[in-house]
Amino acid sequence: MGEALLSSGELEQYLHRQIPLAELMGVRVLGVSLAAVTLCAPLEPNINHHETVFGGAATSVALLAGWSLLYLRLQAADIAHRLVIQRHSMEHERPITATFLARAQLSPQAEWPQFAAMLARRAKARIGVSVRLEQSGERVAALLGEFVALAPR
Amino acid sequence: MGEALLSSGELEQYLHRQIPLAELMGVRVLGVSLAAVTLCAPLEPNINHHETVFGGAATSVALLAGWSLLYLRLQAADIAHRLVIQRHSMEHERPITATFLARAQLSPQAEWPQFAAMLARRAKARIGVSVRLEQSGERVAALLGEFVALAPR
Repeated sequence: MGEALLSSGELEQYLHRQIPLAELMGVRVLGVSLAAVTLCAPLEPNINHHETVFGGAATSVALLAGWSLLYLRLQAADIAHRLVIQRHSMEHERPITATFLARAQLSPQAEWPQFAAMLARRAKARIGVSVRLEQSGERVAALLGEFVALAPR
Repeated sequence: MGEALLSSGELEQYLHRQIPLAELMGVRVLGVSLAAVTLCAPLEPNINHHETVFGGAATSVALLAGWSLLYLRLQAADIAHRLVIQRHSMEHERPITATFLARAQLSPQAEWPQFAAMLARRAKARIGVSVRLEQSGERVAALLGEFVALAPR
């Protein structure tokens, strides 16, 4: 009937072990649930020449948050899969000048039951995530991502 | 009347010095001209759990290429500026399994003379770049980015 959800600590270890850049960027996991995954990262390793967060680093943390949410949900539903980003768009709304967080949720249009059914039936399905980036409670950027899940062959 | 274009080596040093992540990702500058900037990066520091390039790393290299092209053009025209990413979208078309390159050009709609005139007149102007990512000569991803240039106050 499904597995227990990974803890924040387990997800953090997994990300650091699997994606060296996540560790170099100082990505931490602040919270996990079926509804949302929240990551954070400090300014220092991600800084640019304006003393703000490099846009590629902000995007990377947002993509990791979105990926993590889908990974956790698929794990919890005990659905074997391979999860790949297909496209994304990012609005860089304000300069990020300190530690920031990225909170991923399913996109408003996403239909999880249909996604899971399609993955079971066709071994391939797409789903969208919406990630909000915040610094000190204020929104600084937003990412929309579309992932594709593939059942193992 | 404008300055000499930075060399590949000078741009590479500048990127590594200003953006620590660029150095950690192993970003190299392959070629610079007013028409295009080409960067490359190896798989290893940018790897994910599928043994392919993490999407955030591919995006970061693409953004650095786009930023570098505009930076070089503004430098060559001797226009003081601060250059910031405003939005971007990325199509992750194929898994990247080895060293890849990112070649940035102005987007087909970009009008450089209007951009430079607007920057001089209003101290703020937007322009688009188009970045193609390749592995072994084959297209693997594409990014469209919109940057805003701000004249120093």
